[in-house]
Amino acid sequence: MPENVVSVEKLNERLVANPFNAWMGLRIVELTEETIEISLEWREEMISNPKARVTHGGVLGALIDVAADFMIGAKVGAPVPTVDLRVDYHRAAAPGNLKAIGRIVRLGSTNSVAEAHVYDEEGRLIASGRGVYFTAAAKK
Amino acid sequence: MPENVVSVEKLNERLVANPFNAWMGLRIVELTEETIEISLEWREEMISNPKARVTHGGVLGALIDVAADFMIGAKVGAPVPTVDLRVDYHRAAAPGNLKAIGRIVRLGSTNSVAEAHVYDEEGRLIASGRGVYFTAAAKK
Amino acid sequence: MPENVVSVEKLNERLVANPFNAWMGLRIVELTEETIEISLEWREEMISNPKARVTHGGVLGALIDVAADFMIGAKVGAPVPTVDLRVDYHRAAAPGNLKAIGRIVRLGSTNSVAEAHVYDEEGRLIASGRGVYFTAAAKK
Amino acid sequence: MPENVVSVEKLNERLVANPFNAWMGLRIVELTEETIEISLEWREEMISNPKARVTHGGVLGALIDVAADFMIGAKVGAPVPTVDLRVDYHRAAAPGNLKAIGRIVRLGSTNSVAEAHVYDEEGRLIASGRGVYFTAAAKK
Repeated sequence: MPENVVSVEKLNERLVANPFNAWMGLRIVELTEETIEISLEWREEMISNPKARVTHGGVLGALIDVAADFMIGAKVGAPVPTVDLRVDYHRAAAPGNLKAIGRIVRLGSTNSVAEAHVYDEEGRLIASGRGVYFTAAAKK
Repeated sequence: MPENVVSVEKLNERLVANPFNAWMGLRIVELTEETIEISLEWREEMISNPKARVTHGGVLGALIDVAADFMIGAKVGAPVPTVDLRVDYHRAAAPGNLKAIGRIVRLGSTNSVAEAHVYDEEGRLIASGRGVYFTAAAKK
Repeated sequence: MPENVVSVEKLNERLVANPFNAWMGLRIVELTEETIEISLEWREEMISNPKARVTHGGVLGALIDVAADFMIGAKVGAPVPTVDLRVDYHRAAAPGNLKAIGRIVRLGSTNSVAEAHVYDEEGRLIASGRGVYFTAAAKK
Repeated sequence: MPENVVSVEKLNERLVANPFNAWMGLRIVELTEETIEISLEWREEMISNPKARVTHGGVLGALIDVAADFMIGAKVGAPVPTVDLRVDYHRAAAPGNLKAIGRIVRLGSTNSVAEAHVYDEEGRLIASGRGVYFTAAAKK
């Protein structure tokens, strides 16, 4: 695996300049050569079922996509287009902040694969998934 | 395939009572025995890359999930938990409203599969996907 | 969608020249501008659980992959590399021949998406899925 | 995570009693509380493209499915039905034996998620993926 080519500060600027990411209150908490940790600030509008008050799966999927994408971004210089994404929902998320850990599965010349796991504030695994990202343009 | 067991009005009430769905401006436009059409009202906070101004993939994924889920909901009486979701991104979505068409692939006793396709205002296919939904509880 | 650029005879030659496809007894039954139908000749070694005698999910997945891939092949001239594949298993397949219908979801410049549905001899839906295929090289 | 409830010998008996698994020459090499390693014995009929002589993606998908499934089997007592599977293809596999490492992502009451990574004899990552497995019956 190549070394990161951008700083966490630079990558975080890119993250929060993205309006939907900003709406989700995303922030890069930590970036290592192997993982990225991104926190999400919960808000009332993220709720799905109003009685169960669980966080909407679409928000969890977005968080997984961003964490996987930005770990690739650390290696290629910038976030890249998502080709496809698979999300598995493991447990309902009660109201509260979340964090995601992103990792690269395979950095390829054209398409790359990365995964992410989402945890609640008690450290329980809420959702996880993996996606294919188009890295051809970014690596040129 | 069994007949729908809820009216479009009832299903739409469920849809908009969901805060994140309401935030996305979702509304059921049409419900037949085979398909559900759900519209999304675009908003500035849905943007991903601020320069390209494309709609965030997380929003597209959420829309696919909801359209697939609510078509199952029409058959079993209520929306059901998503087990997993796969989304394919076909084309960047410029600012503008979107619509999704949901269809059932297989209605099962425990797990069911449904799919949805997202189109922009010019009718171009933006994204599509399919998910597994847990229908055991709903069908009891 | 562009027109097919290869004949069904030519595409079938490619199919059966592939040793694993030949082992599965695959054959193109029909090719239209929209769909490809591929038949699989069941064999004892395809069984999974020896008591239930159902066809192995790996064989069903391979059939879906081939049907989706070869429909793209009809448009771009030759089968193309699979980037990823998702398979949903709907119903156990008893011993017997199978057929798959492949369709293109989106023909793209670099990555394309196609899907396929597998049916048993009574026409019951056994499995279905979709994959991303790398079409950049083939289209040059 | 609960402890394994079957021995590697017992699980291996189940593995090789499965005709398609036997055809692939599968064998459990090692079983720990966290991982299962399964080897595949390459054979000529596994080839896809006859010129490139790479191993067919359907075989790689089957291997991933089995490794993920049998790691769950170690926890619940027996292999379980696959609900769906996603496979990412990272690199073409030249002729030669393969091995897969399976791990559980989330052991649930009804549906569980497990993943597997496939490596060639030089230890290169060839393919990986994850699936949902129906564990309700097995855990009763």
